Amino acid sequence: MAPRIADGEDTELQLKSNVSNNKLGDIESGEDAKKSVPENLPILHKVLIPARTPLVHGLKDAVKEIFFPDDPFQEFKNQPRKRKYLLGLLYVFPILDWGWNYSIGDLKGDVIAGLTIASLAVPQDIGYAKLANLSPVHGLYSSFVPPLIYAALGSSRHIAIGPVAVVSTLLGTQLRRELNPITQPELYLRLALTATFFAGLVEFTIGFLRLGFVIDFLSHATIVGFMAGAGITIALQQLKGFLGITHFTTDTDFISVMRSVWRNTDEWNWQTALIGSFFLVFLFITKYIGKRYKRLFWVSALGPLASVILATAFVKVTRIDRHGVKIVQHIHKGVNPSSIHELFFHGTYLGKGARIGVVAGLVALTEAIAIGRTFAALKDYHVDGNKEMIAIGLGNMAGSCTSCYVATGSFSRSAVNYNAGCNTPLTNIVMSIVVLITLIALTPLFYYTPNAVLSSIIISAVLGLVDFKAAFLIWKVDKIDFIACLGAFLGVFFVSVEIGLLIAVGISLTKILLHVTRPHTALLGKIPETNIYRNLLQYPDAGRIPGILIVRVDSSIYFCNSNYVRERTLRWVNEEGEKISASNGISIQYAILEMSPVMTIDTTAIDSLKELSNALQKRHIQLVLANPGASVMEKFQLSSFIDYLGEEWFFLTVGEAVQVCSTLMKDSISNLQERRQL
Amino acid sequence: MAPRIADGEDTELQLKSNVSNNKLGDIESGEDAKKSVPENLPILHKVLIPARTPLVHGLKDAVKEIFFPDDPFQEFKNQPRKRKYLLGLLYVFPILDWGWNYSIGDLKGDVIAGLTIASLAVPQDIGYAKLANLSPVHGLYSSFVPPLIYAALGSSRHIAIGPVAVVSTLLGTQLRRELNPITQPELYLRLALTATFFAGLVEFTIGFLRLGFVIDFLSHATIVGFMAGAGITIALQQLKGFLGITHFTTDTDFISVMRSVWRNTDEWNWQTALIGSFFLVFLFITKYIGKRYKRLFWVSALGPLASVILATAFVKVTRIDRHGVKIVQHIHKGVNPSSIHELFFHGTYLGKGARIGVVAGLVALTEAIAIGRTFAALKDYHVDGNKEMIAIGLGNMAGSCTSCYVATGSFSRSAVNYNAGCNTPLTNIVMSIVVLITLIALTPLFYYTPNAVLSSIIISAVLGLVDFKAAFLIWKVDKIDFIACLGAFLGVFFVSVEIGLLIAVGISLTKILLHVTRPHTALLGKIPETNIYRNLLQYPDAGRIPGILIVRVDSSIYFCNSNYVRERTLRWVNEEGEKISASNGISIQYAILEMSPVMTIDTTAIDSLKELSNALQKRHIQLVLANPGASVMEKFQLSSFIDYLGEEWFFLTVGEAVQVCSTLMKDSISNLQERRQL
Repeated sequence: MAPRIADGEDTELQLKSNVSNNKLGDIESGEDAKKSVPENLPILHKVLIPARTPLVHGLKDAVKEIFFPDDPFQEFKNQPRKRKYLLGLLYVFPILDWGWNYSIGDLKGDVIAGLTIASLAVPQDIGYAKLANLSPVHGLYSSFVPPLIYAALGSSRHIAIGPVAVVSTLLGTQLRRELNPITQPELYLRLALTATFFAGLVEFTIGFLRLGFVIDFLSHATIVGFMAGAGITIALQQLKGFLGITHFTTDTDFISVMRSVWRNTDEWNWQTALIGSFFLVFLFITKYIGKRYKRLFWVSALGPLASVILATAFVKVTRIDRHGVKIVQHIHKGVNPSSIHELFFHGTYLGKGARIGVVAGLVALTEAIAIGRTFAALKDYHVDGNKEMIAIGLGNMAGSCTSCYVATGSFSRSAVNYNAGCNTPLTNIVMSIVVLITLIALTPLFYYTPNAVLSSIIISAVLGLVDFKAAFLIWKVDKIDFIACLGAFLGVFFVSVEIGLLIAVGISLTKILLHVTRPHTALLGKIPETNIYRNLLQYPDAGRIPGILIVRVDSSIYFCNSNYVRERTLRWVNEEGEKISASNGISIQYAILEMSPVMTIDTTAIDSLKELSNALQKRHIQLVLANPGASVMEKFQLSSFIDYLGEEWFFLTVGEAVQVCSTLMKDSISNLQERRQL
Repeated sequence: MAPRIADGEDTELQLKSNVSNNKLGDIESGEDAKKSVPENLPILHKVLIPARTPLVHGLKDAVKEIFFPDDPFQEFKNQPRKRKYLLGLLYVFPILDWGWNYSIGDLKGDVIAGLTIASLAVPQDIGYAKLANLSPVHGLYSSFVPPLIYAALGSSRHIAIGPVAVVSTLLGTQLRRELNPITQPELYLRLALTATFFAGLVEFTIGFLRLGFVIDFLSHATIVGFMAGAGITIALQQLKGFLGITHFTTDTDFISVMRSVWRNTDEWNWQTALIGSFFLVFLFITKYIGKRYKRLFWVSALGPLASVILATAFVKVTRIDRHGVKIVQHIHKGVNPSSIHELFFHGTYLGKGARIGVVAGLVALTEAIAIGRTFAALKDYHVDGNKEMIAIGLGNMAGSCTSCYVATGSFSRSAVNYNAGCNTPLTNIVMSIVVLITLIALTPLFYYTPNAVLSSIIISAVLGLVDFKAAFLIWKVDKIDFIACLGAFLGVFFVSVEIGLLIAVGISLTKILLHVTRPHTALLGKIPETNIYRNLLQYPDAGRIPGILIVRVDSSIYFCNSNYVRERTLRWVNEEGEKISASNGISIQYAILEMSPVMTIDTTAIDSLKELSNALQKRHIQLVLANPGASVMEKFQLSSFIDYLGEEWFFLTVGEAVQVCSTLMKDSISNLQERRQL
């Protein structure tokens, strides 16, 4: 206690014990002590310390909030054991839940939606597999097994599972860095399958351990930037197939791609370019119609399949492939072969596959969860992110054993699924069946499909990832967020998908850390004719109280920001002090810290508050705390900070603190005047 | 707007337009609209949106808060240009400032303190160099150049610069992983110097770019654990010299060290152990005296030097070194030789040196800043962390060119410096001069110094790093913090210093991220006979308001927690709804979100609030916001959220919101009753 009462503060000291008597008296014995209360003091409320929760309870609560904030087991409460088992089964296999309640009325919508997304999936799969440098059939395989698993375990009704452009590209660029897909195709495939296994494993693990919140660390703004960059990058890459260029860069950055395009103008094939352009325009028109007239959405949904059929027929008839138009050629026929023995479970490729798989798996997860949440919000049903991760993870693990590569929720197909009126995950099953039929019987039909039309389909699909509206909204609402968005975009556009992703993660984390290390503080003033104190910058009518400085700290105080809070408060005191001495006002005697926003505090922060109190005492300013919360008061008590500062300096509201301090100041001025007269 | 007003809500809809008229009328035209105001409504205050700050201003403010929160250039404001230059010079070289004002009165204290810490530094330096696997003379070198540089540039008056135990050990273990110090001593030294250069460079860079807050990311609790673990680990390592063992493990974990000690009992040398034990006891006694009687602090300060003199004399006289007692032997004589050409600026060792240096530099910085802050707080002067980092960084960079290894602020010597009554950084210069004299003339005197006494000195010094009091306080105040502390301790103790450091950083970051992803929320109730709403858990007297749920979110809402906030609020609604339906109370019609603690918000969070509002509407509950802050209102406006929710649902205080909602509910009940009667 000693250092708090420095030399030369007798007036304040006396006054302090005055209030102390008053408040303590008020609470403890009541009557005789009250005599010293200045009459104009309001009724004061004590800041309470909550009853201590036992350690086990506290830990239990913390675990619940961290891992089960959505209380997934709420239904299980107070149920007989048998019912609990049933609920558990329904929890693990949502298909039992919706399958049991399935009505024939839902069937029509599901079948139509399933057929529609299948018609979209088949051409996309063939194209996306090429983004991952795999043969087209692996794209089809990946639209067969993972959707089936998802349909059994997933909880989103609208998501459509299969290969997606961004993940395919990411996987392709990463794998190519390790192995050459043309000279070492078998090793390359094995590494891709291994990566898929680990992508599934990491997805499953995150979901099972209920760590799903890790994907929340990617901010919306950076995702918008990353997706836009990836969309444009992938579209530009398609210039290879679109123009029929043979010698094309394997880099994905804008400059390398443009160089490849312009340096190899002699390789351009005008027939290819013509086919590509024609179908690109065709696809854009169907897309426009689908967007413009909601009822005609099927026009845009069937566009890709129609393009493939038309283009294939055209090539087959004209045999234009003899003039340099590249075609898909032979696609292996038959259902997914087992690939469990192809996985690397030891050797150097194990580590590489794991590393690549983890990155691809996390990106895939981010995309799937974003889609799931979007549609769940639109239709107001609940999607358990962790369960989704388990479903997608198991889908990919099973996929890696059946020749599939990484699958996840597709933006474009899920939107079509939604518009086509899907009702349950049955659509994924319908789609799987169509893909299965394609694999068994229809692959020969794609022999004459020109690569250019696949490129057009990919371009028209991935340009949908560029969300101008979202970017504009971000620009409008928060310029710094926009810089983050732009950073991720430029990273993908000018360097690579991985660097863009790194930038996105880096910016997001930096933003969080800056947020917590540099919390906002505000000076408060009194709103006229009320007892309400608010930010002076927000409420220009609010008035300062002479001799009293009111600072609000808008964050918890703990190790990473306690120094800043101390220094910033002292700076407020200095700055205001200068203004006051310039205007000859009453110098600051009380600094009130409004603690309402301070959710919690730690030992470092308590030390900082002690230092703050000491520094203020040296300036003859008393530190006063208003409305410290439950957890804060508990820690103040445990660390004896309440005794250190003096219980009398804790108030329930800023208003009460100001009233007491003002009264004390008036008394002290009249005290001083009295003394001088003596 | 359409989805907000769902079916079946005609009563509420009508009521809403009622209030809307009222509030808007109040603000805009005034008179005629007021007729619809229920008479019992209070005066309502509008939530204001602050005037928009231009982008450049906003960025400038953000940069200032991030990089210059302590406003170091405050003095420069409104000064003539000439004075600004002078102030700039004083800012860069604090020595000019304190040197100019130096009074002869300060000199005595500084010289005594300087001599005292020199007497402590010389034996410690010789011992610590061995921790880094370097020859003793490098320890002495490092106590000569860096302290001189620091004295010119540093701003802490109490810090004593030189080699320290933890950093030496960290450097030693990391370097040994790359090179063998016994078989490749020259290469090893060169790598050590390179690491020192990069340690200095990273320290300088962080300070120069004013990124000093990065070291705030290490929480106090983990530092306590890490330091205790390092202290005990280093002490145990000293058993090698203490017992005279030759074959000793190079690992630092407890189990390896214990195994080395007990498997090599045949190598124990009883004479060595006797000397070690004797002086360890001697040192503990002097330490105890120094602690017990503050005036006799010099007893503990001179203990190490006295031990060295006594032990050396003893060996010299008895020639016990012929019986297996290991001695220091020859120490190179002369001032620091230049080592600028020894640094690796290319080749594989460049990267290795840089990596090791960055880690060592950051740990050194953490220790130095912690010391600087401690003493600055004790004596209430300001230490600019970033300037400290520049001073220490330049000290190490200069040191690496003059055969020094990483130096930083030493806990033990700084405390002695403080107790010995130092006044200015001149003590570091005095110490340097003593070390210089030692280097030039006195090194031969250490020839017969037994290693055992150096081990005893190190043990007695590093055990001071174990801060039981701090650990106990952490345990008392916050159990989860204590687990973090224990984690860092066990990591160092059972694995290695680096793993302990990694655990410390990992735990600290996890804690921050958990803090922001899982913000605290609380249900509020009304404190009787006031208009104040507080946490029901903290104030058991506070009462619930029938039909109204009040939730406070204790954090900013942004991408990493917006989903949680939405889900948690819905859970509050569900949980309370169940309780109410169990007790047959009035079902919830209004959910008030107290936004006071919400400092800022981003686009993701606004989307989440929209989703929350929709989900509540489906349950026939109106979302109401109380006291959104300046930045939040600005973003609400920019994103049109104010129009989305309706301006009438924004209130200045929870009290006003409750009053309006209660009035509306009464009206709605009487409205319903009237209708039924019709």
